[in-house]
Amino acid sequence: MIKAYAAQEAGQELTPYEYDPGPLGADEVEIAVESCGLCHSDLSMLDNEWGFTQYPFVPGHEVIGKVAATGENVSHLKPGQTVGLGWHSAYCNECSTCNDGDQNLCASAQPTIAGRHGGFADKVRAQAKAVVPLPEGVNPETAGPLFCGGITVFNPLVQFDIPPTAKVGVIGIGGLGHMAVKFLSAWGCEVTAFTSSENKKAEALEMGAHKTLNSKSAEALEEAAGSFDLILSTVNVKLDWNAYLNTLTPKGRLHFVGATLEPIELGVFGLIAAQRSVSGSPVGSPATIEKMLAFAARHEIEPTTQTYPMSKINDAIQALRDGKAHYRIVLTKD
Amino acid sequence: MIKAYAAQEAGQELTPYEYDPGPLGADEVEIAVESCGLCHSDLSMLDNEWGFTQYPFVPGHEVIGKVAATGENVSHLKPGQTVGLGWHSAYCNECSTCNDGDQNLCASAQPTIAGRHGGFADKVRAQAKAVVPLPEGVNPETAGPLFCGGITVFNPLVQFDIPPTAKVGVIGIGGLGHMAVKFLSAWGCEVTAFTSSENKKAEALEMGAHKTLNSKSAEALEEAAGSFDLILSTVNVKLDWNAYLNTLTPKGRLHFVGATLEPIELGVFGLIAAQRSVSGSPVGSPATIEKMLAFAARHEIEPTTQTYPMSKINDAIQALRDGKAHYRIVLTKD
Repeated sequence: MIKAYAAQEAGQELTPYEYDPGPLGADEVEIAVESCGLCHSDLSMLDNEWGFTQYPFVPGHEVIGKVAATGENVSHLKPGQTVGLGWHSAYCNECSTCNDGDQNLCASAQPTIAGRHGGFADKVRAQAKAVVPLPEGVNPETAGPLFCGGITVFNPLVQFDIPPTAKVGVIGIGGLGHMAVKFLSAWGCEVTAFTSSENKKAEALEMGAHKTLNSKSAEALEEAAGSFDLILSTVNVKLDWNAYLNTLTPKGRLHFVGATLEPIELGVFGLIAAQRSVSGSPVGSPATIEKMLAFAARHEIEPTTQTYPMSKINDAIQALRDGKAHYRIVLTKD
Repeated sequence: MIKAYAAQEAGQELTPYEYDPGPLGADEVEIAVESCGLCHSDLSMLDNEWGFTQYPFVPGHEVIGKVAATGENVSHLKPGQTVGLGWHSAYCNECSTCNDGDQNLCASAQPTIAGRHGGFADKVRAQAKAVVPLPEGVNPETAGPLFCGGITVFNPLVQFDIPPTAKVGVIGIGGLGHMAVKFLSAWGCEVTAFTSSENKKAEALEMGAHKTLNSKSAEALEEAAGSFDLILSTVNVKLDWNAYLNTLTPKGRLHFVGATLEPIELGVFGLIAAQRSVSGSPVGSPATIEKMLAFAARHEIEPTTQTYPMSKINDAIQALRDGKAHYRIVLTKD
């Protein structure tokens, strides 16, 4: 039996919950959970905001742990090895998207917390393909958030071949944005943090941002016209996107990793006149996660985290709901 | 004196008009016009739709002619050479965008028909940098429309490294779209023409499209989910852009070359889930125009044109207003 924390209905507190995972699949591994990050999408799923949550619901998809058991077909992971597991727990491994190495875009990819049980538990299972070993130099105590929030902001740099000469803006200095600032600074870019909070301005500069820009000032946006090769939006609120488009260089890109529910409205001339792009992306593939971990190890990058014991999961959830996470919450095994 | 056709006020008929161009600039050439394409943006400018037309207004920015005179600094063009001139007549040649070879995105680039006089004339002048020689194998009688409409649809293939394995959809089979179909077919792509006209379906297939799709059928769009690597929109009307986004493959791109005045509304999840992009671009750089002309010559691609003598310019404008251009109108010297 696996001992987990589950919500029985939308929005409810988590309570201890045991389930029998059945026999271990030939392509699967079982991970003994050591810690698990708490991501904003755990909350969205807990509250069934996206409409596909199944209850009892066990959140948690930023898992760090040790391989406890491996299925008979698994050869690249060994019991005892420290590994991580993120948003996806399985891919089809057969479609052309998977064959291209873009498993994260596989239409049949299975989220760790939808139709499966997640990492707020003593153990969790996943297809071995979705499990990535933690390299030397990555601190396992803070590495959990790299596996969802981290890869979400790192992935676009790989996907779009962002050069270290690029000027990049990050909208929203929170769970995702603070990792974006750290990665981009180590990537060699000129980094501007868009935030309206004085505290976050100071912290963004400490994390490696070179400049800050008041995201609520139309004047500041106007002055920044034609400045940025890339803007990463990590927020889930509606902004004046045409004003942001206007801050891009020719061929610049406004890229969304924050799941804004409200549609974005764009003037076509703003795209055409300077050959600009607007795009979005989810988490990354296993290969890109590997690249991220090696990069994080080499540059000593780790998420800024607060730790709660797993038994205090409901306190942690409340802190996240209240906007008090600083910057990312990690639950450690009881 | 240059003998041209000009409108004295917004929306008026063109009448004969003479102007003194002054001494030829050191970096300029004078072109003796042999023909000039009529583009929909000549109409938009004639009617001052974009708000920056200056009158008297001489339209015409798809010029084919012979070099009549060259400024003292001009060495790569010789009198008598057959050349073309498109939307831009001059670049700053000093900014980083120009230095990158993206003169078409230069913020100071001068349109041929804004603040200057265009090609519906016996002569027209332009900075030599903006003038491209016509290579052997390109028919000068039909080449005019390549210099604005043609390069507008060819340029994205170069900019985004579209591979010949791509599946590409073209929305709108008109002045721009019909050239897109011809280029994409020769480029090696699988080409789908989105149109609701039965006549245009048949013609698109003749021009090299492999499939057609009824652009007004929500059901047909639904069935095409996940099909296209690239969709080029050449129309200037509002469509259900989220339905089109849904027809893109993972990493697919919806690209606008048609200047839709109404804002486009996009759901962010449609971008994020499959890493899709939405973008736009104007005409191309001189280097890309050269590549297009060489490609057109090698593949014997020419715009499908109707010809009017320059003296019948007002009839031609009326035909374009009435949607009767089939597919592109070229005015020839009187």
